[in-house]
Amino acid sequence: MTSHEESAPQETPPLRRRGERMRQAVLAATVDLLTSRGLAATTVAAVSRAAGVHETSVYRRWKTRENLIFDALATRTEEALPTPDTGTVREDLCELFTALTRFFATPAGTALLLLGTVREQGALEEGRRAYWQARLERAETLVRRGIDRGELAEGTDPHLLVEAITGPLLARVLLTGEPLDEALAPRLIDLVLTASRPPS
Amino acid sequence: MTSHEESAPQETPPLRRRGERMRQAVLAATVDLLTSRGLAATTVAAVSRAAGVHETSVYRRWKTRENLIFDALATRTEEALPTPDTGTVREDLCELFTALTRFFATPAGTALLLLGTVREQGALEEGRRAYWQARLERAETLVRRGIDRGELAEGTDPHLLVEAITGPLLARVLLTGEPLDEALAPRLIDLVLTASRPPS
Repeated sequence: MTSHEESAPQETPPLRRRGERMRQAVLAATVDLLTSRGLAATTVAAVSRAAGVHETSVYRRWKTRENLIFDALATRTEEALPTPDTGTVREDLCELFTALTRFFATPAGTALLLLGTVREQGALEEGRRAYWQARLERAETLVRRGIDRGELAEGTDPHLLVEAITGPLLARVLLTGEPLDEALAPRLIDLVLTASRPPS
Repeated sequence: MTSHEESAPQETPPLRRRGERMRQAVLAATVDLLTSRGLAATTVAAVSRAAGVHETSVYRRWKTRENLIFDALATRTEEALPTPDTGTVREDLCELFTALTRFFATPAGTALLLLGTVREQGALEEGRRAYWQARLERAETLVRRGIDRGELAEGTDPHLLVEAITGPLLARVLLTGEPLDEALAPRLIDLVLTASRPPS
């Protein structure tokens, strides 16, 4: 290591990181802690220490520990999920929902679902609602392309189809505890696509 | 009121109720409190007072407040949900899932879903898992009858069909916050039944 490299950290002292750079450092530390030490150990104090920022800066930006963890996991989801465009609706949906199934099965994915869930009546924050709706809309784009290509009937409702594929995956993780095997999404996809065939 | 009726309560003093009779009194008081005063006000102390039993008896039987509330709501669900047998699979499923939609929209139904949901990884109790699986199996019976009557293709998977109808209802309540309108279940039912038509 050269003396130039050694001096680099002093040019950007950890405690003075700002804006997007501070945000990225904190989110990365949050995901690291969640993955290595679990949900309970991922406190604002531990995250701040690992990211080298003041706890007060974290609270100023995210308000609560739950918001911080949700933001970290939502950002990681974006990286984990593809936006396929293979040319056929079945392939596109299988790629997206297989990736989603695998992600939900990871500690980070399960934590995201648990944190994203309503805890008390009416307690779901607007941001989380918007987050999930945006995720559903992305999948709807794949269905809409299938309609445009004539693979699916014109009256097909993209929102209904995406709900019928996504809902059972969520219900297994959150409610019934049935294993989230990778065969489930393709079987649901075949079910809804069979129902949506154009008249032959 | 006759003196005979007035003396009746003394023959069964509230604090000495046992077994099924005590259980029913406590569960009824729990549902009453949930409906009239909400989840937060439904403490073991308040329930015990309303039911006229010792708090220690309640803890001995249910261990935790959450178990008590879950048992009360699960019992109420049994009363709220029909087991239709109209002769056609579409009618049967529409009756059951319309009742379920209406129940989920009540304070007791929403509370049941929230309480039945996993809070932390691996924390779902075996009893709740079994509860949800038994509910799904009841709906599967309706689908199986449709297969037996030749309304649905022989290879139809009742479990998959029921998951595809139930999952989106749960996801709306628990995750996306989208209104649980009564049109959703019939549309999901039509989707999965269309996919399961016997070869003509």
